[in-house]
Amino acid sequence: MENAASGLFAGIDFGGTKVAAVIADAHGNIVAEGVIPTLAEEGPAQAAERTCRLLDDLCLQHSCEILAIGIGLPGLVDRDAGAIVFLPNLPPQWSGFHIAEAFASHSHRPVSLLNDARMAALGEYTFGNAGGSQDMLFVTVGTGIGGGLVLDGHLRLGAFGAAGEVGHHTILPDGAPCSCGSRGCLETLVSGPALAAAGRDLMRAGRAPRLSELVAGDPAKVTATRMAAAARNGDQAVADAIRVAAEYLGVGIANAVSITAVRTVVIGGGLSVLGDLLLEPVRRVVKERVRMFPSEVVQISCSTLLEKSGALGGVALAVEEYKRAASNTSA
Amino acid sequence: MENAASGLFAGIDFGGTKVAAVIADAHGNIVAEGVIPTLAEEGPAQAAERTCRLLDDLCLQHSCEILAIGIGLPGLVDRDAGAIVFLPNLPPQWSGFHIAEAFASHSHRPVSLLNDARMAALGEYTFGNAGGSQDMLFVTVGTGIGGGLVLDGHLRLGAFGAAGEVGHHTILPDGAPCSCGSRGCLETLVSGPALAAAGRDLMRAGRAPRLSELVAGDPAKVTATRMAAAARNGDQAVADAIRVAAEYLGVGIANAVSITAVRTVVIGGGLSVLGDLLLEPVRRVVKERVRMFPSEVVQISCSTLLEKSGALGGVALAVEEYKRAASNTSA
Repeated sequence: MENAASGLFAGIDFGGTKVAAVIADAHGNIVAEGVIPTLAEEGPAQAAERTCRLLDDLCLQHSCEILAIGIGLPGLVDRDAGAIVFLPNLPPQWSGFHIAEAFASHSHRPVSLLNDARMAALGEYTFGNAGGSQDMLFVTVGTGIGGGLVLDGHLRLGAFGAAGEVGHHTILPDGAPCSCGSRGCLETLVSGPALAAAGRDLMRAGRAPRLSELVAGDPAKVTATRMAAAARNGDQAVADAIRVAAEYLGVGIANAVSITAVRTVVIGGGLSVLGDLLLEPVRRVVKERVRMFPSEVVQISCSTLLEKSGALGGVALAVEEYKRAASNTSA
Repeated sequence: MENAASGLFAGIDFGGTKVAAVIADAHGNIVAEGVIPTLAEEGPAQAAERTCRLLDDLCLQHSCEILAIGIGLPGLVDRDAGAIVFLPNLPPQWSGFHIAEAFASHSHRPVSLLNDARMAALGEYTFGNAGGSQDMLFVTVGTGIGGGLVLDGHLRLGAFGAAGEVGHHTILPDGAPCSCGSRGCLETLVSGPALAAAGRDLMRAGRAPRLSELVAGDPAKVTATRMAAAARNGDQAVADAIRVAAEYLGVGIANAVSITAVRTVVIGGGLSVLGDLLLEPVRRVVKERVRMFPSEVVQISCSTLLEKSGALGGVALAVEEYKRAASNTSA
């Protein structure tokens, strides 16, 4: 087998609307990348085939070959079987599909699967902002909240590979129903859509003049980035809405830190564009609520890989699996 | 060095009022045990000396020798230095004391330290009710709530050895102040004293006739065991108080399970005497709130080691350290 250190690997991040692929070396240096629509209704076999063709095209364009493939999917996967178990936001025909086999039969390369948030955590830990720590909590806040845990240098999987689901632990026992079936989950209190809805409400109530200007009066144009700009330019009510969401995120992160005693927290996803507007309240709440050890040791930052953490996590996963296969072959 | 499989080990569980010691083999079979008062105000050196004498006496009485010692302490310890960092419920002169050295200089045996709840988790995992699982959350509910996590077959320590502190994560963000300095922690909602206080209130309000009989009208005699008996004999208000506490415990356990994806939960400490009155609501709430993987796989039971989980955890710790030392010597 080729040496992993000099080879290239593919990382693929399947989402409900698009599939992002990168080809990178074992240090995370990207040599090629591409995005195609998922077209989820066509089914997983078609999506896998089109993604394989994307990889072929990228390899052809850049005159390169890949050694292994790491794939992330938005839900439960069976890593041993290489199959999808259940993806809450995709059509039912995706469940049970042996996606690893589909990729392997086309590419003849080792293929590994992971939940997308765990894969992004692995990407962030391997190539991102973990700063050499042995432990990391990764929280991605976008349409929903996902997460992953690296503990003592290893990605924690646990039952059904579900470790790190900080978005679906209870913050308010009597809170609003959550899409997961529970109530009062962190995700019911903090998300991109929830924050944008709060921004639109403030606009309609005439309490967000700067935001109104920034979106030229069109509520559909309200985004986290524009809310951050409005807050920085004097919309106090918008700043307050961001702060309240960030404080709830802080409670959720403090809970995960208290339970797992990780020293490093990285926040990714769409809301990480809020930067210090998000980080300052999160850090303050973690300091207030993590009291069983000196919480000054907990480093909290935003992702530097941003929307690439998932696909780069796929590269990290592919490298891991390739090395494992190589050591089994040589043993 | 002697073979760990045939030797004996000491486990010592330091509490605020008493010190429990056991001598057992590597399978957790206890050959001798004893308890002495901590007399915490006399200071740690005296307490260590008296505990060493207890061990000497036990060895003499049972004509045995020990190979290594594992010690649990109720707070933060520095395992590498063998020193106490901070014990919230003991006098300040305990902080900074090199307790491992004190034991080693008397016994000339390897000595290891651990937080008491983590040590109890190790005991429960090694000798108790974990049922061969690779993962376990141990929660001990007594005067306060402690806990420990075994993940992928290893006791999780994390920053300052603080992993597993489920008692001090937030259940009610605007809840009551907690002794730890935060507010709305699980421990503010569920504990032996809080449940007994609820029982006394119901007695005074005339809503707990069976409990009144059982304690002959003396509120000081209200215990969890007696409340369980009263609830089983018709005191509906007492049964409700137990259920509410158990449901909060269920929320806390569900949170830890969602975040870490452990498959096994063991509940110990004084409140575990409530048995099914505790387990039934906990299991129901975990089923309701753990939705990101099929929560039927989560096994929840009460400790079988009961008050011995700590000292037996010390034995497990001593065995681990002895084996590590032996493999370093032979390497």
